Amino acid sequence: MATNKAWTLAAYLSGLPSLDNFRLVEAPAPAPGDGEVLVKNLWLSLDPYMLGRMTQQKSYTKGVEVGEVMTGETVGEVVESKHPGFAPGEKVVGITGWQLYAAVRGEVLGKIDPSARFPLSYYLGCLGMPGRTAYFGLNEVGKPKAGETLAVSAASGAVGSVVGQLGKAAGCRVVGIAGGKTKCDYVTGELGFDACVDYKAGNLHRDLKEACPKGIDIYFDNVGGETLDTVLRMVNTFARIVVCGRISGYHAAEPYGIKNLGAVLVNRVRMQGIIVFDWADRYAEANKALAGYVAQGKLKTRESVLEGIENAPKGLIALVKGQNFGKQLVKLA
Amino acid sequence: MATNKAWTLAAYLSGLPSLDNFRLVEAPAPAPGDGEVLVKNLWLSLDPYMLGRMTQQKSYTKGVEVGEVMTGETVGEVVESKHPGFAPGEKVVGITGWQLYAAVRGEVLGKIDPSARFPLSYYLGCLGMPGRTAYFGLNEVGKPKAGETLAVSAASGAVGSVVGQLGKAAGCRVVGIAGGKTKCDYVTGELGFDACVDYKAGNLHRDLKEACPKGIDIYFDNVGGETLDTVLRMVNTFARIVVCGRISGYHAAEPYGIKNLGAVLVNRVRMQGIIVFDWADRYAEANKALAGYVAQGKLKTRESVLEGIENAPKGLIALVKGQNFGKQLVKLA
Repeated sequence: MATNKAWTLAAYLSGLPSLDNFRLVEAPAPAPGDGEVLVKNLWLSLDPYMLGRMTQQKSYTKGVEVGEVMTGETVGEVVESKHPGFAPGEKVVGITGWQLYAAVRGEVLGKIDPSARFPLSYYLGCLGMPGRTAYFGLNEVGKPKAGETLAVSAASGAVGSVVGQLGKAAGCRVVGIAGGKTKCDYVTGELGFDACVDYKAGNLHRDLKEACPKGIDIYFDNVGGETLDTVLRMVNTFARIVVCGRISGYHAAEPYGIKNLGAVLVNRVRMQGIIVFDWADRYAEANKALAGYVAQGKLKTRESVLEGIENAPKGLIALVKGQNFGKQLVKLA
Repeated sequence: MATNKAWTLAAYLSGLPSLDNFRLVEAPAPAPGDGEVLVKNLWLSLDPYMLGRMTQQKSYTKGVEVGEVMTGETVGEVVESKHPGFAPGEKVVGITGWQLYAAVRGEVLGKIDPSARFPLSYYLGCLGMPGRTAYFGLNEVGKPKAGETLAVSAASGAVGSVVGQLGKAAGCRVVGIAGGKTKCDYVTGELGFDACVDYKAGNLHRDLKEACPKGIDIYFDNVGGETLDTVLRMVNTFARIVVCGRISGYHAAEPYGIKNLGAVLVNRVRMQGIIVFDWADRYAEANKALAGYVAQGKLKTRESVLEGIENAPKGLIALVKGQNFGKQLVKLA
């Protein structure tokens, strides 16, 4: 019997995560029960939302409790099946956690089309939850129109990079916000954004104004805090702000106080929080659209890969600090 | 020829308004040109938005410049007409400013139905701009459903009082927020709100939680600042926040920093700024609905009346401080 390695939550988060928040547990791989599938995980996705699950604060879904396996989306291979819909060898995607093996009910797994030629890891990025988040957030709340200016924070990240490329496909002027010249060069050079502002350069307001001479019609917010406050200074009438993430909030002991909300009234801004689960009944639509863009070369992606499950906590810690570059993955096998 | 008295802007606002911001100017009443109507104003409305017009900050409409007549909505009587659609004696409503007489183009005036039996002042309150603001803001952005909890700040004011009564008509649990026991008693006793929290009592969060045991589904925000921040701590999933005013912002030298915007993401809140002008093509619908509610006794109103145009600046200053009680009017004749 194979040995499972699983990262559990050792301590709830207070402030930024450290290695002390995690504990690696070894045990025999579980045996699947009736209706269950034993999955050998190949790829683990690391995402900012995981920080929210490591606290006891109320959130949109249940958090991880101390001693439980860390939550996370994976791509894996069926090694044993007691579910009529799955057979060994099939590739699946699901929220099976930070571990090498998981026995889960077949219903919670998505099957990866074996005829598709995409790398399996894409199903955790541009063709997975981040891609669908970008798709529904931008289209359903951002509602881009050709000629509008779309600003995106964490622009080189898993969600932001898709948002910007979908915005370009919709005919928008797309302006990224990212940390550092390397990321900004990638965002404009590789992903085709019209401009990218380096917030670490220290002149976000001035630089963003210069990059958005007609103001901002849509802001896809992955970071919150001071960046959001700066964007509020230049939103246009009837602007839409898609509130998707607030990674900046994890750094501060005290929450940042947003001072420019007056712009919401003056400009009749619509600001809306989104969670991709709310469109769960429409995932197939998004998957198809995203696959189409990837196949046409209109949706490029960059991955940051760590080898071995042992490195998962380090990867999440780096992600919070913005040290990753593109979609952060852990290769498990 | 009659003498006109008009309040002009003497100095742009910095901080709260004082008498020094206004100058009373006397001159002969103007003669109407072709297509114009000379209106003798009977009632002047005082509203929080006027503060925004007294600054040079960008806003949704042009501000008043120093030396210009203060902007404001009035009800008046036609005394002379060079417009085919108007005849002396007719009652009209329009934005004719803080003055006794105004010569304006007929097109900018609304005619008051002479067969209606409502007091003329109502056309500046529950049947006027504040009523329509409440109507569109609540229905188009708040989208109340029976059984939901609706919270309203400045609950005894011109807009808030209509919002709450429309919310009751829609089957919501309606909780007001107002300053002082007298206003709160009026809001529950006269207007029929289910509860009213006195923010001056010093325990807004605790008291509001008690008044909203099922959380808040809709918040109609007339004040912004700390009250908004407190409401954000108890919004439900898919809550709507109608951003209509931010009178608290005028008191502070530094804008208040909103710390609980994380709730917008976690609860997928929709927060939207509204200006009634955006529904100008649907005013007739609102007017009809509001008149129906008033006629049925479902929409009560309270007015705070100052006598004489000389008192207009004092009235606006008191309004900002929350010293008015109900719709603030100046009786001009």
